[in-house]
Amino acid sequence: MKFCMNCGKTVSRKMPAGDNRERFICESCSAIHYQNPKIVVGCVPEQDGKILLCRRAIEPRRGFWTVPAGFMELGETVAEGAARETREEACAEVEIGHLFASVDVIEAGQVHMFFTARLLGGYGVGEETLETELFAREDIPWTEIAFLSGRFALEKYLEDGGRNNGVHLHRVRHGE
Amino acid sequence: MKFCMNCGKTVSRKMPAGDNRERFICESCSAIHYQNPKIVVGCVPEQDGKILLCRRAIEPRRGFWTVPAGFMELGETVAEGAARETREEACAEVEIGHLFASVDVIEAGQVHMFFTARLLGGYGVGEETLETELFAREDIPWTEIAFLSGRFALEKYLEDGGRNNGVHLHRVRHGE
Repeated sequence: MKFCMNCGKTVSRKMPAGDNRERFICESCSAIHYQNPKIVVGCVPEQDGKILLCRRAIEPRRGFWTVPAGFMELGETVAEGAARETREEACAEVEIGHLFASVDVIEAGQVHMFFTARLLGGYGVGEETLETELFAREDIPWTEIAFLSGRFALEKYLEDGGRNNGVHLHRVRHGE
Repeated sequence: MKFCMNCGKTVSRKMPAGDNRERFICESCSAIHYQNPKIVVGCVPEQDGKILLCRRAIEPRRGFWTVPAGFMELGETVAEGAARETREEACAEVEIGHLFASVDVIEAGQVHMFFTARLLGGYGVGEETLETELFAREDIPWTEIAFLSGRFALEKYLEDGGRNNGVHLHRVRHGE
């Protein structure tokens, strides 16, 4: 951030009064610009014991497989966001179940939240996807999973075996 | 947002290519400025069956009681954020337990995540707090709780009775 989004003047990095860390502040209009982690919402859609994965058509990790997931938008709940991402990436409707994993990706400034989900009907290939496929548990392409957070989610999903064992918290070191 | 934080030119509201909703975009430097929900992290610190609440010294809801909670910062995990907020607001150290509630506050563009916590040692009064007190279950000041999300968290915390029943998802309509 170089310029104030309120008034267009240059911002500087200073600690506001009453705060305990530096922020981008505008000395022209006094605006303080906070920067906070973003939420990624995703789900593990299941149908007849198989799991729906998407092969990414975009970077990062183009060509690798992932559960449907993406940035949460304003105006939706976390569960609605996970369902929307599945609609966009896999052209599939899901019934969202329970939250079972929350992964801190500190270096990327992100928190990844994963839900169980029941795949309702068919699926297709969204704009950001090369192909979409239902994988039996033993056929999951573990060496071609795009992100550590999604790999963790898949592992815990299978360990839970459908039970709600609460949320598995995890931290991964890199955006990958 | 009126100005581009990268180049200082005016931004406009348009749908980027390949997107499905309008964003703030800069036609001068082509930057797309996404706006996403922010995460509030909090906990319910318990000690000897009593719950630690803080009376707010700042707006909104000055004078009302709340569990320790606040905006998650870059560079920390959700659990670390909940512990930090407790340190700042109640001068108290906690051992964070499990995530038990996630509340969507859509109109405020926020997701509030609440953890169980064990209060370690004493407590005090942080800069944004008027007073801090341990409440027995029957003495919780229900009519003076600051926010609907915190009220939901307290209710579910007591219903769970220490068990990890997974995450209670909820949506509240207003920032209050």
